[in-house]
Amino acid sequence: MTGPDTPRLLLDRPRLEANAARLRARCAELGVAFRPHFKTPKSVDVLRAAHGGIPGPVTVSTMKEAEAVAASGAATDILLAATAIPARIPRAEALARHHGTRLLLVLDSAEMTGLVDAAASAPHDVLVEVDCGEHRAGVPPKAALPIARAVHGSRHLRLAGVMTHAGHSYATDDIQKIADLAETERAAAVTAAEAIRAAGLPCPIVSVGSTPTLLYARHLHGVTEARAGIALLWDLAQHSRGMCTWDDLALSVLSTVIGHNRSGMSLILDAGALALSKDVSANSFAPGTAFGALADAATGARLPLQLGTVHQEHGTVPVPDESWFARLPIGSTVRVYPNHACLTAAGGYGAFDVLDESGATTSRWPRVDGWH
Amino acid sequence: MTGPDTPRLLLDRPRLEANAARLRARCAELGVAFRPHFKTPKSVDVLRAAHGGIPGPVTVSTMKEAEAVAASGAATDILLAATAIPARIPRAEALARHHGTRLLLVLDSAEMTGLVDAAASAPHDVLVEVDCGEHRAGVPPKAALPIARAVHGSRHLRLAGVMTHAGHSYATDDIQKIADLAETERAAAVTAAEAIRAAGLPCPIVSVGSTPTLLYARHLHGVTEARAGIALLWDLAQHSRGMCTWDDLALSVLSTVIGHNRSGMSLILDAGALALSKDVSANSFAPGTAFGALADAATGARLPLQLGTVHQEHGTVPVPDESWFARLPIGSTVRVYPNHACLTAAGGYGAFDVLDESGATTSRWPRVDGWH
Repeated sequence: MTGPDTPRLLLDRPRLEANAARLRARCAELGVAFRPHFKTPKSVDVLRAAHGGIPGPVTVSTMKEAEAVAASGAATDILLAATAIPARIPRAEALARHHGTRLLLVLDSAEMTGLVDAAASAPHDVLVEVDCGEHRAGVPPKAALPIARAVHGSRHLRLAGVMTHAGHSYATDDIQKIADLAETERAAAVTAAEAIRAAGLPCPIVSVGSTPTLLYARHLHGVTEARAGIALLWDLAQHSRGMCTWDDLALSVLSTVIGHNRSGMSLILDAGALALSKDVSANSFAPGTAFGALADAATGARLPLQLGTVHQEHGTVPVPDESWFARLPIGSTVRVYPNHACLTAAGGYGAFDVLDESGATTSRWPRVDGWH
Repeated sequence: MTGPDTPRLLLDRPRLEANAARLRARCAELGVAFRPHFKTPKSVDVLRAAHGGIPGPVTVSTMKEAEAVAASGAATDILLAATAIPARIPRAEALARHHGTRLLLVLDSAEMTGLVDAAASAPHDVLVEVDCGEHRAGVPPKAALPIARAVHGSRHLRLAGVMTHAGHSYATDDIQKIADLAETERAAAVTAAEAIRAAGLPCPIVSVGSTPTLLYARHLHGVTEARAGIALLWDLAQHSRGMCTWDDLALSVLSTVIGHNRSGMSLILDAGALALSKDVSANSFAPGTAFGALADAATGARLPLQLGTVHQEHGTVPVPDESWFARLPIGSTVRVYPNHACLTAAGGYGAFDVLDESGATTSRWPRVDGWH
């Protein structure tokens, strides 16, 4: 018996396509454009699936992602959702020159606006980042206008709108609270946009997004587009808070049982800290998830086993009784569902192994990991 | 001002070379060969530095690492220190065919020995893995002989020795306890080797290793080689237990200050969970290290600041007072020293930016991340 060389990153294509169709329907229902976040899949093939096979707008987290998307033709309208820095401006200008891509930059300070403008030698569209309560990047809604003025008054930057991200919506499983956060997110972006317009400045784009707030927003009046990434693939962190069902989980890691530790009552897997990441975010709402949940390799059906500890290339799975040594013999394979799809998928696989309707691996979709 | 495009992975070459020289001297003092672990640097240039510029033996954690090392010529004697599986055998045989490489496989069960032998069509050298107390992979010393017999009696596998790893030596900062663990590690490997030889089977290699036990072993009588990886680069987890000094730390992440959150009294960096990893292992012995310690970008001198929280591409650094907004203005750069060099370096950088004696970046050394 020779199974596949593991660990491998499995992507269930029918689940991805169903997840994507639901997101498109949800955005249509809310009357906003869908700008999927590339940072989770980092794959132009997944981006194409997100838009149902046609080009569409995208959010990216790195210039390298922007470059891959632009070269693929899967999107010509790209939002780089991390604060711009001067060193990325030559790369941004090369994108426009080579591919005619529109790259939206994000800024949230007069200082960085000045530095980016000084590094620019061509026009750049800019969104002002608004803080809607996560208190990471961005300025409070009422502080957006001074940044907008700085952008508008610069040599090379063109004000294109505002954006915000309710990342703190991941901290609860209370749907009413999420709906309230969605309203806070919407109101923050719209308030900032209205202040900018009232000052006579342009603000065509009003961009919001996090997976929970997109799912549970009561309305998105005044918003032009929504961003979401994890809802394409899902993971145990989202599952733990009821954001998706087990059958929506499109991403897992295939691993081989490389040993039985009978005195320690555990299975040893060839999937550890690099294959899964050290993220344990599902454990707040699903205690005992540890580093991942095991499932049948062929069907994805859940097993009552978890990845208890991880070393760089080893994972240890405690088993409740000896029957598991027969059920999962040495050399057999299992799936591990991760806490956090974004970090697991970025663990160094380089590509997804794509499962079709029958569960067979039909193709490999390359990923765009790293920065340079 | 246009700084470098961040985040970047900095490798201090003089520190690497000093760390490597100390490891070679320590192995010479103990009378054992040095087989550096490639899993930390994943770089053939670092491997060459580890051996002082000449080829030498190496330990690897993946077949992809073995393939890169073999192709580079930096080593012709490679130990793949994770349990072999049948799917990797064709790759192992290609290595021998194309490069004449000796690849040592590791096995610790009769079941996997049978599966690997069945997948083989050429000879393979095998070490039996012994558990010296970490209770991850390996068998107790007295259970090594049956595995050795299974290897010796197989069609294609050749018994080449035993190996063990005292990974539990990372759990203490007590040097006497580490010296005791080193003796347990040594005795486990030597006991297994003696039992195998007493049965008339060959056991030329007796391989041990973990950074702390190599540093503090009282002697390594009966051992032929020692493995260590983190001692080439060091990190805060090791620093927290007194295994190295601040000036030994050869690996850091260069990041840009992309924002000031004045109401939250924090700096925002463009280095987060992917750039640093979510490993927090230094915090057991150095509480408050959080996700990494900040240092001056140019000199590496420590600052009294830590990376408090990480998102995928954002890091938040709490500051004690407003003076830090002037000391580290928006657009400036800082270094972040990581908890766990192996996981940080594997975060997707693809290469080290190598700093020379003057602190200038003189070259890029590619890394071998991933599995396939």
